[in-house]
Amino acid sequence: MTAGSHTPGGLLKLIRQGAAATRADLVELTGLARSTVSQRVDALLADGLLVEAGEAPSSGGRPPTLLKFNKDAGVVLAADLGASHSRLAVSNLRAEPLATAPGLIPISEGPDVLLSWVAEEFGRLLEETGKSLSDIKAIGVGLPGPVEHSSGRAVLPPIMPGWDGYDVRDRLAQSFPAPVLVDNDVNIMALGEWWASSEPADDFLYVKIGTGIGSGLILGGHLHRGADGAAGDIGHIQAGDETVVCRCGNLGCLEASSGGGALARALAAQGYNTKVTRDVVALVRAGNTDAIQAVREAGRQIGSVLATIVNVLNPSDIVIGGDLAGTGAELLARIREVVYRRSTALSTRELSIRASELGDSAGITGAAAMAIEYAFSPNAVNEWAGVR
Amino acid sequence: MTAGSHTPGGLLKLIRQGAAATRADLVELTGLARSTVSQRVDALLADGLLVEAGEAPSSGGRPPTLLKFNKDAGVVLAADLGASHSRLAVSNLRAEPLATAPGLIPISEGPDVLLSWVAEEFGRLLEETGKSLSDIKAIGVGLPGPVEHSSGRAVLPPIMPGWDGYDVRDRLAQSFPAPVLVDNDVNIMALGEWWASSEPADDFLYVKIGTGIGSGLILGGHLHRGADGAAGDIGHIQAGDETVVCRCGNLGCLEASSGGGALARALAAQGYNTKVTRDVVALVRAGNTDAIQAVREAGRQIGSVLATIVNVLNPSDIVIGGDLAGTGAELLARIREVVYRRSTALSTRELSIRASELGDSAGITGAAAMAIEYAFSPNAVNEWAGVR
Repeated sequence: MTAGSHTPGGLLKLIRQGAAATRADLVELTGLARSTVSQRVDALLADGLLVEAGEAPSSGGRPPTLLKFNKDAGVVLAADLGASHSRLAVSNLRAEPLATAPGLIPISEGPDVLLSWVAEEFGRLLEETGKSLSDIKAIGVGLPGPVEHSSGRAVLPPIMPGWDGYDVRDRLAQSFPAPVLVDNDVNIMALGEWWASSEPADDFLYVKIGTGIGSGLILGGHLHRGADGAAGDIGHIQAGDETVVCRCGNLGCLEASSGGGALARALAAQGYNTKVTRDVVALVRAGNTDAIQAVREAGRQIGSVLATIVNVLNPSDIVIGGDLAGTGAELLARIREVVYRRSTALSTRELSIRASELGDSAGITGAAAMAIEYAFSPNAVNEWAGVR
Repeated sequence: MTAGSHTPGGLLKLIRQGAAATRADLVELTGLARSTVSQRVDALLADGLLVEAGEAPSSGGRPPTLLKFNKDAGVVLAADLGASHSRLAVSNLRAEPLATAPGLIPISEGPDVLLSWVAEEFGRLLEETGKSLSDIKAIGVGLPGPVEHSSGRAVLPPIMPGWDGYDVRDRLAQSFPAPVLVDNDVNIMALGEWWASSEPADDFLYVKIGTGIGSGLILGGHLHRGADGAAGDIGHIQAGDETVVCRCGNLGCLEASSGGGALARALAAQGYNTKVTRDVVALVRAGNTDAIQAVREAGRQIGSVLATIVNVLNPSDIVIGGDLAGTGAELLARIREVVYRRSTALSTRELSIRASELGDSAGITGAAAMAIEYAFSPNAVNEWAGVR
């Protein structure tokens, strides 16, 4: 029995995930009264979230009606807002985008400018898909900085002037009559990769290696946000050269020596024209040995932090994403080398470390997934996403 | 709504924890049919786990009957087996010991010798409390090494010759007609400290600093065991002097430089008569500056590992236990210093780092708590403790 399996959203989830196909299955799986199940299924049929799809084989007597999840019974709006580029989507109820739009407004322009654009584009995309405001089940937003999960506000975001304490939920609720969920970008990427896995693991770690470094943790099948919503912030773990000052003010942070931004600066100091992470990736792909060396060393340092995390959490899956993951085998091989050397044998027995499957679309998939999970089980999501 | 709140054990838990006091409360909290609640409450009354305790104030109509948890409706057997000393208890259903026995058989004597003693002593303690075999609801056992949670067997335990793969559950089930739960000692200590907290935090870390170093994690309100039951194994994180060989074969493990065993060896090399951790504690208490220096440095190294864990998991409570915690303020102050310096500001905003309240009895309390949780919600415990 899982949390919330007795709510209408819980019943729907059992059907969405293929665990149940008939009213009788739902009664058996939940222990709810037959009358309660019937009542809730009727409500879901009336909402169009379930459709009847023929008859199941009979085991004697009247054959039971098959129930099917209707992924087109509504849409969610998803926004993956990054430091310099964003993505928006109108997605169906399986988190598949029906229409998307890119954006190039920097987050530093502030919330009024950026969220006005978001609202406008969402309106345009809705029109493009032929959907109306009443079709929107929920809205999911990812921000490139810490988010207070209980209020949906950005908290002390280092690269987001004007956003501190800003009520993102309230702003979007002015334009759309639907619940708004806000989380940091790495958490939604983790959710997206996890949601897209063929067999989602209970204990799953997503690591984003871009300009900065961060992670999102799925533990026991739920996004782990920690007491202050700060869980997963691995970029500021002390992991190396203690003479390097990080943008956070501390010395020796992982991302200050091994993030894409740090590598670009280090290579620039060697005379290369590397301004951003993607320049480093291009050099590596071109076979430049200085860049390859730099990425290898970054992989080892990141691996050493992940080895610690593996000893602590014993996850079964680690997925590596972010722009620097575009360097491919070089980075992944060094991370694996150090994790397998430095973690205990028991904790790596069945550990898989692999590259992201979704790449750039992890965030937008996760923002949609977050909205869908909330739309169907607001209470269950309350528990893990801290939505009031 | 929490996992398993719809089972009879789930209903009982709502009453045990004070969330519900009447049948109507249970209907409201769970959404179950009134008839289902009545049926389950009747079964719990018949079992003696609930008793009727007068009437609640009426809001019109017949006043509802108050339901009370009966902590004396049965007992659990609890065993905290250590490397060199053990504790056994017969405890009531609030994990309070009714009778206890210490033991001095080393774990290295092997499972046959030790578990025969456990079975014999459990029998004697039962008699002492005037209870019979039919009163036993469940049995909880802690072992000083890795345990495969799905089978209740020790797995590759480094200090436990003869225990690898041994079926502890089966051995004790031969003597007692009750379910047997097995976990590693640090997990049960974490559970004990958490269970005994006045307000158990959702994200809670227990750190045992004895001869070795380990931890137990409560995340999202559940014991986190990881994919292989290896979570919390922080003693073998690389954290310092890479020239020191650890008993695990790796270099630079935290416990190889900062565990009580390592400190005793280092001080012995300086000419002190320190054989075990408690000798180090005695020197510190006597004001010996070499021992104080050594403990301070250990505190800093442990603090540096905990700073990483705080960045990753953002817990709200860290409890420090184990023999070396007996050095008191010296150790705790250095741990706090490094954690507050090295973790992000957001993740330490509401962090409490404190000494164990239960001390030596954390393990036996946790073993009893594990047994009680299972006895009342076998399915819910299945999910987190991996009991088949």
